[in-house]
Amino acid sequence: MASSEEPKFEGWVGLDKDAAKGNMVWQSYDVKPWEETDIDIKITHCGICGSDLHKLRSGWGPTEYPIVVGHEIVGTAVRVGSVAAAQTGIKVGDRVGVGAQSDSCQCRRPPETVEDHSGCEACASGNEVYCPRITPTYGGTYITRAGGKSMGGYARFHRCPAKFAFKLPDNLPSEHAAPMMCAGITVFSPLAHFGNRGEGPLEQRLKGLSVGVLGVGGLGHFGILFAKAMGAERVVAVSRRADKRADALALGADEYIATAEDDDWATKHARSLDLIVSSISSSNMPLTEYIGLLKRDGVFVQLGLPDDGLFKVGAAPFAFGRRSLTGSLMGSPHEIREMLQLAADKGIKPWVELWPMSEANKAIVEMDAGKAKYRYVLVNDE
Amino acid sequence: MASSEEPKFEGWVGLDKDAAKGNMVWQSYDVKPWEETDIDIKITHCGICGSDLHKLRSGWGPTEYPIVVGHEIVGTAVRVGSVAAAQTGIKVGDRVGVGAQSDSCQCRRPPETVEDHSGCEACASGNEVYCPRITPTYGGTYITRAGGKSMGGYARFHRCPAKFAFKLPDNLPSEHAAPMMCAGITVFSPLAHFGNRGEGPLEQRLKGLSVGVLGVGGLGHFGILFAKAMGAERVVAVSRRADKRADALALGADEYIATAEDDDWATKHARSLDLIVSSISSSNMPLTEYIGLLKRDGVFVQLGLPDDGLFKVGAAPFAFGRRSLTGSLMGSPHEIREMLQLAADKGIKPWVELWPMSEANKAIVEMDAGKAKYRYVLVNDE
Repeated sequence: MASSEEPKFEGWVGLDKDAAKGNMVWQSYDVKPWEETDIDIKITHCGICGSDLHKLRSGWGPTEYPIVVGHEIVGTAVRVGSVAAAQTGIKVGDRVGVGAQSDSCQCRRPPETVEDHSGCEACASGNEVYCPRITPTYGGTYITRAGGKSMGGYARFHRCPAKFAFKLPDNLPSEHAAPMMCAGITVFSPLAHFGNRGEGPLEQRLKGLSVGVLGVGGLGHFGILFAKAMGAERVVAVSRRADKRADALALGADEYIATAEDDDWATKHARSLDLIVSSISSSNMPLTEYIGLLKRDGVFVQLGLPDDGLFKVGAAPFAFGRRSLTGSLMGSPHEIREMLQLAADKGIKPWVELWPMSEANKAIVEMDAGKAKYRYVLVNDE
Repeated sequence: MASSEEPKFEGWVGLDKDAAKGNMVWQSYDVKPWEETDIDIKITHCGICGSDLHKLRSGWGPTEYPIVVGHEIVGTAVRVGSVAAAQTGIKVGDRVGVGAQSDSCQCRRPPETVEDHSGCEACASGNEVYCPRITPTYGGTYITRAGGKSMGGYARFHRCPAKFAFKLPDNLPSEHAAPMMCAGITVFSPLAHFGNRGEGPLEQRLKGLSVGVLGVGGLGHFGILFAKAMGAERVVAVSRRADKRADALALGADEYIATAEDDDWATKHARSLDLIVSSISSSNMPLTEYIGLLKRDGVFVQLGLPDDGLFKVGAAPFAFGRRSLTGSLMGSPHEIREMLQLAADKGIKPWVELWPMSEANKAIVEMDAGKAKYRYVLVNDE
């Protein structure tokens, strides 16, 4: 073990569901017991994700309070376990990022873990995000013998398994890397996976393809940036209102559709897109029409989980065009590394607004009101 | 043009929607004007498809009567146009099959066709079934200058563009080939397309995969037969009741799930299948649970078009497993050829019950009552 600073775990703690209204409390809290596979990170930046609000207000079922949210973490490694160092090469002083996944089963078996996970196909094949036993970065419980609860990044320090911390390329600014750790990877992964069968170099992964980005927000703005960086022939941003047109075009979109304002958009743009990534958070979208925007064999990827009921969709656009509806969850470690490198190589600049960590309560309220353009990042002042 | 017999176009004509109740009338009717791209076929066999009933009763919107249904046609070429002969090699006397698609735009332009179709990507890429201008085998209108209505196979003779007629391998019996032309190709195509990315020899296309066949009927029974023929590791038939278990196992299924009778089927079989082909004809199925039967990256293919409203499906099984919902329409010419050859090579034997053409009215009523096990084939007696 190498250590440069004794971490003191203090941060913005949610004590009940009113925390989401700007009532998080700054205090100390317990983190997972130290294991030699872990690192401690001195947090410099943490992005604010819609999930943070959702979890704070018990939006996905009852949250186990106390909780510290935040899963777009960037900081400096201040303590590196002996196994962690050997596994990952991370050293004290390295700048690292942590996303929404803190751990997977990693095919571990007793005595390391309580149960035997040696048969996990997802982890064995590098698809760790689809491991049935993932531990989220906050509000989860670790499956190792040591156990403990996971606590997020609205804080001074963060402790996590080093396998899910990623060294950042030198020329990628921390405030840009932070929101990539969740919002960025969530759109990067499906673009890289479904574009041209996931084959070929990343910067040509969308070569020849017309890509639709549905919803222009934290995720959608990354969708435009990454689609262009992966060589998409044409990027079409889709939103309800026209008021995000200028931003979308400035981000690199070639076209813009405002579904609430453009007449006959569904007919006019039918059969025009190869791939759509959707960050729409409601099930009550015109999904049949959206699928109809796809060409033959086109793929519609729903990101995230609406909590307002089931999708309703007609059969015709599937049969007459062999189009697909699918979903995608964040991204696995190898994809996070690929994304960070691509972002550094291409100089991708997400649009972020910085807030001092001390104003986290105000920032989440503004975020909840939809004011972020397009991502808020909390910054520790020391 | 070579001709061996002057065709007389007589058959079972539907005059109004009561025809579906067993009231088709045997009489003569007009076929499309002869073109040198056509062939005339003396029909020996014609399978009965659920679509025939649907169309006879105006189930997909008003049918333009008079109509002759039937799109699982097998017979002998009795007249072959000069262009047809050069294009296809079909000769008078050849045994041929015709499915549910009679024509596509074939990228033709004036003067052959009324409009210019030279930009059709589907036809240019061998995906003719997804051409936006297909002419179905009955109830359609040809897009050539000559035009005319398409008339199906409950008849003595059939006239169609030779491009959509297929020479049958010698060792494939006509009564087996007939139902393959629609029911067979409808399940063959998605199995071949989605199995192992559509790559590798057909008889190993499903190698290593667990395949679910949802619905054991005309389509489903072909699903079991073809999945085995393509080397599936495991074929699981799924139906509501247990009463088709013996048949499904006799057809080659390795397992059987009766969703209305097996407790906890959705949990017990979760994450167990790579590919599901569904011939369920209602939108009101437990689609979220069905998608949950798939492994990560698994594909659920809905065949055909329920006419009872929209699918309702949850987001979770898509996101947590990157599973897909897609659809598929019959199959394109190259796939029909591949299917016929595979069926001949593997000696695939669909379960058919033969009816004399003269009893077509009785046969469609029995078919409509769900009595076919699993396909009825009308046979001309001369």
